[in-house]
Amino acid sequence: MARISDPAILIPKARDGDRRSLARLITLIEEGGEAGTAILAGVFGSSGEAWTTGLTGAPGAGKSTLTDRLIGNMRETGSEVAVVAVDPSSPFSGGAILGDRVRMQDHIDDSGVYVRSMASRGHLGGISVATPRVVALLDGIGFPEVVIETVGVGQAEVEIAGNADTTLVVVNPGWGDSVQAAKAGLLEIGDIFVVNKADRAGVNETVRDLTQMLDLGGERSWKPPILPTVAATGDGIPELWAAINEHRHHLVASGKLAGMRSKRLVAEMEASLLGGLRRQVRASIPEAEWADVTDRVVGREVDPWTAAARLLRSLGVASE
Amino acid sequence: MARISDPAILIPKARDGDRRSLARLITLIEEGGEAGTAILAGVFGSSGEAWTTGLTGAPGAGKSTLTDRLIGNMRETGSEVAVVAVDPSSPFSGGAILGDRVRMQDHIDDSGVYVRSMASRGHLGGISVATPRVVALLDGIGFPEVVIETVGVGQAEVEIAGNADTTLVVVNPGWGDSVQAAKAGLLEIGDIFVVNKADRAGVNETVRDLTQMLDLGGERSWKPPILPTVAATGDGIPELWAAINEHRHHLVASGKLAGMRSKRLVAEMEASLLGGLRRQVRASIPEAEWADVTDRVVGREVDPWTAAARLLRSLGVASE
Repeated sequence: MARISDPAILIPKARDGDRRSLARLITLIEEGGEAGTAILAGVFGSSGEAWTTGLTGAPGAGKSTLTDRLIGNMRETGSEVAVVAVDPSSPFSGGAILGDRVRMQDHIDDSGVYVRSMASRGHLGGISVATPRVVALLDGIGFPEVVIETVGVGQAEVEIAGNADTTLVVVNPGWGDSVQAAKAGLLEIGDIFVVNKADRAGVNETVRDLTQMLDLGGERSWKPPILPTVAATGDGIPELWAAINEHRHHLVASGKLAGMRSKRLVAEMEASLLGGLRRQVRASIPEAEWADVTDRVVGREVDPWTAAARLLRSLGVASE
Repeated sequence: MARISDPAILIPKARDGDRRSLARLITLIEEGGEAGTAILAGVFGSSGEAWTTGLTGAPGAGKSTLTDRLIGNMRETGSEVAVVAVDPSSPFSGGAILGDRVRMQDHIDDSGVYVRSMASRGHLGGISVATPRVVALLDGIGFPEVVIETVGVGQAEVEIAGNADTTLVVVNPGWGDSVQAAKAGLLEIGDIFVVNKADRAGVNETVRDLTQMLDLGGERSWKPPILPTVAATGDGIPELWAAINEHRHHLVASGKLAGMRSKRLVAEMEASLLGGLRRQVRASIPEAEWADVTDRVVGREVDPWTAAARLLRSLGVASE
C-alpha cells in the first residue's frame, strides 16, 4: 500500500487520535520540503494553545522518570500529553524507538499519551530546526501538553529545551553536577531546578551551590525555585507540579507568555528563510566546485573573501 | 583633503609603518564593501605568519595589565606587536579610542606597538565578522604578534578570543570568578588559565576549583596549565610567557596549527558567503514589507513557514 502523504487526509485522522497518521505527519515534517510546510500551515490556525515543558540535564539525571511522573499529573485533568524525546547523538531511529517503549513504562497503555523520539534521522537540517516544527504540529493537532525531554546537554538540546514555556533543569546531588550544569549553560535557561535522586548524599550542598550560582546572575522577575525530588518514589513531585503551575501563572500574569510566543514565531520565520537561502547555495554550487574552492582557500591559492565573492556572483548575488 | 581609499597606496604605506594608513585600512575593512575585500585580498599573500594570542575574562580581571606585560616579552625579540581590543558593548568610538591611550601605558611611546579598539561602530555586521578580518590584515601587513584582548566575556568576545592560536582565560581569586568563567563557556576555550591578582586571598582555592572543573572535561592532548600572576608587579609573568611558548610549540609539533588555520580560512569564506546572502535578503525586502510580514506572523494571520516561503519566492529562491 502506498504511503499517504496528503495532509488533507492525514491531519483529520491524526486529530481523531490515529497515531499512525500522526507519526506519518511528523516524518513528513522531519523530511522538510513542501509537504512539511503544507502540514504546518494546515494546523497553524488551531495551534498556540499547548503548554510546553522542557526537561534537560545530563544523561542519567532521571529526566525520563521525572517525565513519567509529570505525565501522571497532566493526565489527572484528562489532558492528552505528547512527549518529544530529543537525542541528537543517536543516528539510528531503531534505537530511539526502542528507547520510547522502555522510557514511559507507566503510560505505555495510555492512549492519551504519545511519545516520539527525534534522533538525527531527519533530512531537514538538524534537530534544532525539526523539533520546534514537530512541537508546533503536536500543538496544532490538539495536545494541550507537550513535554520536550532531551537525552543530554549538548548545545542543540539546551537550545531546544530552553525554548519551552517552562524549562526544568535536572541535576543530581554532588559538586560536579551543578558545575557541569553551569558549564552547559543550563543556569541561564532553567525556570525550575530539580535536584533529583535527592535520597543521595549532598543534596543540601547542591541546593546551596545552585542558589549561589543563580544569585550571581542578578535579580530576575521570576526567581527559579530549586526543588529536591526522588522521581523513583514520587517524593517532591507534588511540589514540582505546583511550581510548574506557578510558573505558568507567572508567564500569563506578567504578559511574558505572549511575548515569548511572538518571538518564537518570528524566529521560526527567520530560520525558515535562512534555511531556504542555504539550500539555494547548496543546490546552486555543485559538490565538486565547493570542494575545489575550499581546497584552493586552504591551500592559500585564493583568499576566502575573494572566493566567497566569486561564489556569490556565480549565484547571481551581488558581493559585498 | 580627500581621504585616500586606494589599497594600492595605503597597503605599502602601512607596511612601511605609517599608522594613519593602517588605521584607514582597518576602518575600510570595518565598513565592509568591496574596498574591504580588495584590501584583504591584497595582503593575503603575505599573511599566515602571525601568532595570535587571545585574552578573555571578566571586566576588571586585569587583562590590559597582563597584555601590557606580554607586549614587553614579545618586544624583547624585536617583534612588532598589534593589539586588537574588542568591546562589543561600547557603541562610541571616542570612548574606545580614549581607552587605548589609557590602556597600554608602558608602550605608549613604542612605535613597534600598535593598539586598535574594535567597538560596535563598524558597518560590516557585527564585531564577530570584523575582528578576524582586521586580524588577517594586521597579519598580512607584517605584525608577527597579534594580541586580541576582549573587554568582557559576552558570547561574541568569547568566540573571538577562542579563535586565537593561544587563548588565555584570566580570572581572579575567589569562588565566584571560576564559576562565572565556567558559565561563560571559558573552560572550553582556554589553553592557559591565569589567576591574576594572585596576591589576594583564595588563590589556591581558585586553582583547585579550576583544576577540578577542567578535569571534568576529560583528557585532552594539551592539558591547560593554571598559572597565578600579579600582572601589576610582574610576578608570574616569566612563567606565563614560557607557557605561551610551550603551547605554540605544541601547536606546531602536533600539527594542530595547520589544521586550525585551514579551518579558520574555510570559516571565513562561509561567513562571507552567508553575509552576502543575508545582505541580499535585506536589500531585496523593503523595510515596510518586512515589518508587515512579521506583524502578520505575530498576529497569527499567517504561519511563519508560509510567510518565509513567500518571501523566498519574492527573492527568486525556491522555497523548501
